[in-house]
Amino acid sequence: MATSSPFNYNSLYSQLSVPVVRGENRHAKYDFAVAYPDPETLPLEGLADSLKVALEREGKDLALYPVAAGLPALREWVAEKLARDRNMNVGVDDIVLTSGSGEAISMLIAALTDPGDVLLTEEYVYLGTLRAMRRFGADVRSVKCDDEGLIPEDLESTLATVAAEGKKVKFLYTIPAFQNPLGWTMSLERRVKTLEITGKYGVPVLEDDCYVDLRFEGEDVTSMHSMDDSGRVLYVGSFSKIVAPGVRLGYMVAPQEVIQRAMSFKGGGGVNQFAALAVQEFAKDSMYSHIQEQNDSLRVKRDAMLAALGENFGDAAQWSKPEGGLYVWLEMPEDIDLAAFQEQSFNEGVGYYNGTMFSPEGRGANCARLCFGHPTAETVSEGVAEMARIFERHGVLKG
Amino acid sequence: MATSSPFNYNSLYSQLSVPVVRGENRHAKYDFAVAYPDPETLPLEGLADSLKVALEREGKDLALYPVAAGLPALREWVAEKLARDRNMNVGVDDIVLTSGSGEAISMLIAALTDPGDVLLTEEYVYLGTLRAMRRFGADVRSVKCDDEGLIPEDLESTLATVAAEGKKVKFLYTIPAFQNPLGWTMSLERRVKTLEITGKYGVPVLEDDCYVDLRFEGEDVTSMHSMDDSGRVLYVGSFSKIVAPGVRLGYMVAPQEVIQRAMSFKGGGGVNQFAALAVQEFAKDSMYSHIQEQNDSLRVKRDAMLAALGENFGDAAQWSKPEGGLYVWLEMPEDIDLAAFQEQSFNEGVGYYNGTMFSPEGRGANCARLCFGHPTAETVSEGVAEMARIFERHGVLKG
Repeated sequence: MATSSPFNYNSLYSQLSVPVVRGENRHAKYDFAVAYPDPETLPLEGLADSLKVALEREGKDLALYPVAAGLPALREWVAEKLARDRNMNVGVDDIVLTSGSGEAISMLIAALTDPGDVLLTEEYVYLGTLRAMRRFGADVRSVKCDDEGLIPEDLESTLATVAAEGKKVKFLYTIPAFQNPLGWTMSLERRVKTLEITGKYGVPVLEDDCYVDLRFEGEDVTSMHSMDDSGRVLYVGSFSKIVAPGVRLGYMVAPQEVIQRAMSFKGGGGVNQFAALAVQEFAKDSMYSHIQEQNDSLRVKRDAMLAALGENFGDAAQWSKPEGGLYVWLEMPEDIDLAAFQEQSFNEGVGYYNGTMFSPEGRGANCARLCFGHPTAETVSEGVAEMARIFERHGVLKG
Repeated sequence: MATSSPFNYNSLYSQLSVPVVRGENRHAKYDFAVAYPDPETLPLEGLADSLKVALEREGKDLALYPVAAGLPALREWVAEKLARDRNMNVGVDDIVLTSGSGEAISMLIAALTDPGDVLLTEEYVYLGTLRAMRRFGADVRSVKCDDEGLIPEDLESTLATVAAEGKKVKFLYTIPAFQNPLGWTMSLERRVKTLEITGKYGVPVLEDDCYVDLRFEGEDVTSMHSMDDSGRVLYVGSFSKIVAPGVRLGYMVAPQEVIQRAMSFKGGGGVNQFAALAVQEFAKDSMYSHIQEQNDSLRVKRDAMLAALGENFGDAAQWSKPEGGLYVWLEMPEDIDLAAFQEQSFNEGVGYYNGTMFSPEGRGANCARLCFGHPTAETVSEGVAEMARIFERHGVLKG
């Protein structure tokens, strides 16, 4: 077995390499921690049938190495979708398919970040992005938010501070729709302001729109990408949330020169052709009806979570009321430490991720992200009630 | 359109980023250039059916993000395969599934290479590996080969030269079975010598065994990995050649600590679960019979190519006689420049890759790699005859 190696590699590792130790994914009985969609609404049959059709038609192309930017027909579908849903006017060549939006984000971070460079994020930010930013040695700083999104005054003063330090902000990363983990959607006014202020400082914006299709209430707000015509807004999207995480398909939209730089960090060649063929065939006729169905299911679960929080936490906590997406943000009183309690809660059957995990500065121990995507509505209700009982038992929630 | 960007990114790119400009893949009428298998022998129906079965059984797991190392059941199958075929005693945790073996190779290069580090390869080497080594700023040096593999004396003197320069060789990369582009398989004796000599200098070996299953003649030679018990041999394999390149599935086998370092360069999360499920289900019952069928077809094509070379090139050139794999290495007289002639030949209907593309030092302009995997046997014969006619017309081949 190669597991324990008597050969000593220590003097051979590159400076950029850091050991990544990841356990197997763990799931509590009531799992509000890991963010994934409802297995019952996965379009499994549709995907299997679509793959069969696609392979019969053009499966022989599997013998070829996929083009580096990924299956052209799927990029075409993405271009049409972005025009239809996000007011974006982009062509097939402006799009690169990636292994989930995570790969797109990593590639863009790698293309734009040297160790010590400043990157800005929202007050709390998607774990995977935060991890990738740190892997490239970024100095990650966060901008305060309220329930309309980034607070312009704080964005401005953060940019001014960095400039005063003689440093350059490489880009601002934002999830403007159904923010992960906060749940809000950035208002149109805030989007305008955010573009104005970052523009003043010559700072690009990386718009991560991976949840935007999961709206089950309210009106869409147009993409930030569509509000800029200078190429300063980079954009990523994903099929993880509207098809399944396991298909590992996402995309980036960027100016040609940025794509060329980002491509130097794409490992493994063009995106999985097998998955791309299935999803493209499926998307053609069934994507929008599938999204509709999925959102109907998510709405019921969100309602169940909000109702259960009201019943079980009452005035003892606050929480967000998202119009879409997968997350409710729970805020307990300042003196409550949900970070310290997380493992205990998991062991007693309820999983959540505490706020410090999402904060560049390690703040938010009194907060938690609750994901309502995966369990049934009934399980959501039961789980929140169980969480309240566990919290009470240990004095985290004062009964 | 974002294509031409008035916003100026020039001051923002990271030092490691380089623009990668890749055209669409081009194919000549007779394409001996690009290395891909026969579309007629792809197990398309098997894969589509396997996926359906797998999705019915465990498709709900697609809702989960795959574990970082990839589908455990497929890693189990790989461990069994390596025990059965390559005398390797490795466990599921010693294996990481990757997006083709290309991603595995890139991750290992990234984990072990700082700019300026010396990496060794065979005299001619797989393009993708050479490109990735250069991307990380490696000082790539090649070791002379004959038709049994690396020449021990040259390996020894190269290592001594590097040591005398006060530099460290980070690893030796080798494709010991059906080498790309040379076609030979390294003999057992050479494998022993190669391990001995690199061992003396404390240099790891990266064994790329991606063609090993494509043997249609002769006896297997055991893996270098199986001949070492110190963890000094890293190993990569691939499903691209035995299933299809489009499934983008490969793997690495390495000591835990090396895996942990390499994982810091894995973008996009665990490998495509969709493809992994299909391949695992397919592999269980059908992989070996499929490989047999594919090799029967490859043998006929190789025979066609060797016969056509004999008929059309006679004494005017030399070429390898591979016992497996996808490549014949053609060597013309020293004064012939197949590098300069490559584009002309492509335009007139015959594609090949000239030797300089595979040489770290840019040597081998009189050589070319001819891939016989994709065309039918009949097309192989026609194509070689056409190549000879084109060569004659332009004085490259003296009739």
